[in-house]
Amino acid sequence: MPLSEFAIIKQYFQQSGLCADATHANIPLGIGDDCALLSVPAGQQMAVSMDVLVEGVHFPLKANPQLLAQRALAVNLSDLAAMGAKPLGFTLGLTLPSVDENWLADFSQGLRLSAHKYQCPLFGGNLTRGPLQICIQVHGLVPTGKALPRSGAKPGDAVYVSGTTGKAGLALDWLKGALPAATPSQINELEAAYYLPEPRLSLGEALRDIAHAAQDVSDGLLADLAHVALQSQVQIVVEAEAIPLAPVLLDCKTRAEALLLALTAGDDYELVFTASADKHEQIMASASAVNVPVTHIGSVLAGSGVLVLDAEGQAIQITHKGYDHFGVTT
Amino acid sequence: MPLSEFAIIKQYFQQSGLCADATHANIPLGIGDDCALLSVPAGQQMAVSMDVLVEGVHFPLKANPQLLAQRALAVNLSDLAAMGAKPLGFTLGLTLPSVDENWLADFSQGLRLSAHKYQCPLFGGNLTRGPLQICIQVHGLVPTGKALPRSGAKPGDAVYVSGTTGKAGLALDWLKGALPAATPSQINELEAAYYLPEPRLSLGEALRDIAHAAQDVSDGLLADLAHVALQSQVQIVVEAEAIPLAPVLLDCKTRAEALLLALTAGDDYELVFTASADKHEQIMASASAVNVPVTHIGSVLAGSGVLVLDAEGQAIQITHKGYDHFGVTT
Repeated sequence: MPLSEFAIIKQYFQQSGLCADATHANIPLGIGDDCALLSVPAGQQMAVSMDVLVEGVHFPLKANPQLLAQRALAVNLSDLAAMGAKPLGFTLGLTLPSVDENWLADFSQGLRLSAHKYQCPLFGGNLTRGPLQICIQVHGLVPTGKALPRSGAKPGDAVYVSGTTGKAGLALDWLKGALPAATPSQINELEAAYYLPEPRLSLGEALRDIAHAAQDVSDGLLADLAHVALQSQVQIVVEAEAIPLAPVLLDCKTRAEALLLALTAGDDYELVFTASADKHEQIMASASAVNVPVTHIGSVLAGSGVLVLDAEGQAIQITHKGYDHFGVTT
Repeated sequence: MPLSEFAIIKQYFQQSGLCADATHANIPLGIGDDCALLSVPAGQQMAVSMDVLVEGVHFPLKANPQLLAQRALAVNLSDLAAMGAKPLGFTLGLTLPSVDENWLADFSQGLRLSAHKYQCPLFGGNLTRGPLQICIQVHGLVPTGKALPRSGAKPGDAVYVSGTTGKAGLALDWLKGALPAATPSQINELEAAYYLPEPRLSLGEALRDIAHAAQDVSDGLLADLAHVALQSQVQIVVEAEAIPLAPVLLDCKTRAEALLLALTAGDDYELVFTASADKHEQIMASASAVNVPVTHIGSVLAGSGVLVLDAEGQAIQITHKGYDHFGVTT
């Protein structure tokens, strides 16, 4: 006999390690009432971000449910990282076509792993029937006035990126069968890049007092820098030669193709940020203290838009600027 | 040429009267960054609730988008009402199969009407492509310790319901074509009951210092009282004769059918609540002060479950206990 909505919630979601427990200082009431209740300590603001993932659009049909759950929570946590916020908890709107207990067990296990790892418990949501979609809203805390907006970049700032970008884009090639010669270790690395992106939470917190602007790379490095440029009313100049390229990109693609992926592919969830050029040593020390590699990739000027320069200082035209859910970039 | 995701958000959602404006005291940062930021005043807690509405499951195919938007926000606000919380703002995860500008114009207009009416502006969310789903999370404020949980009912309490229940259930009959003889004025009343439920926000706030437990009627009066009984570890006894029946129910159905609808049909979003029996005068005065009719329908005893008694005090067996999204009631 299929399980009811309430039984599914109780069996798969109201479990230790996934749900906020009754003693949580800032979540006095969790799952099971008309609303959850949250307490925000004095001197803190709440940062919230919602993402919806749709089967066949944001993740492949028949994706591994445990990895899918881990990815769904991680990509939302990345938005908290980009604000410099510390995770508090999340809500889940889950729409399922049917009750598949194996799927539910794996999915809730993936959520539990990530909720535990990032200290971000589930405290509410909604379970319903329909085409598979996963809506997650994350909630975090950040000291009042210390959040890192997209609008804070200033002429004279240096531009940085954490880790490397492009691997998740290459992973999508592989998932689509367009990378037939990949080795097992390359496949492992690409699967991890796509399904287990690491939200740069510790870096985000470390940047609170140094960075002027930050954003996570979800649409593609250039597309996301364009958001920063637009909202900060500045020009951002990126030096192509400075872009860090993951070895797996260079192993599977030409250098030009690897660079294009690094500049345009989304879904890596690294942070791009800007800070006064004279803070370079402090940036590198802060990043090193939290074990996150960061690379200086460009600078902020008066003006607008994003410009990519080659080694000779010539502008490079990049056509694929990122992902738009309705297929058109304005 | 179809609009891009960003252009749709800008044109249809970032509009005056719908979005939080930059001067909002408790929403220092709204749409357009990695996260929105919320401020919670000292002495207040944040109440949050998420609902997902799926086309063909929660609302009919080709539903009027303006009414649909108004209903989607209202049913979420009803959860704030049931906690005694005052609306702060909402986030929207909207999944659209395609860009239909007429639909978007009507849908955003509906949201704008309700956001303005209930002082609950949009401050974030996500727009994506896929089967039509509407995920809304509402956020409200309630003085610390004053929220109305489901778990607070005590033996000796009286049980009340606001307004009348069952009209939205009858409206569904009409929407399905199962009420062919309905008059135009009946149709208007039923459409309003289904699409424009009135979240009982002022009543919820008025009950903060009087009621012990509250819940909104979304699954059906008995099903929702069963949640209160379970979470409060009490028995709730409902007197069938005391249930208020809307005239339109009695015009379209037999008295027995009308009572069954009032006891079991969901989607009316009235409040059920309990309070000490000796607070009856105060309850009626508070409800009257906010112009919401409330009716004393039963009482709370030691024990468990929900019992419905007829005029002779005999227990009535009710088979249809409410709605479960996976079709099974445990």
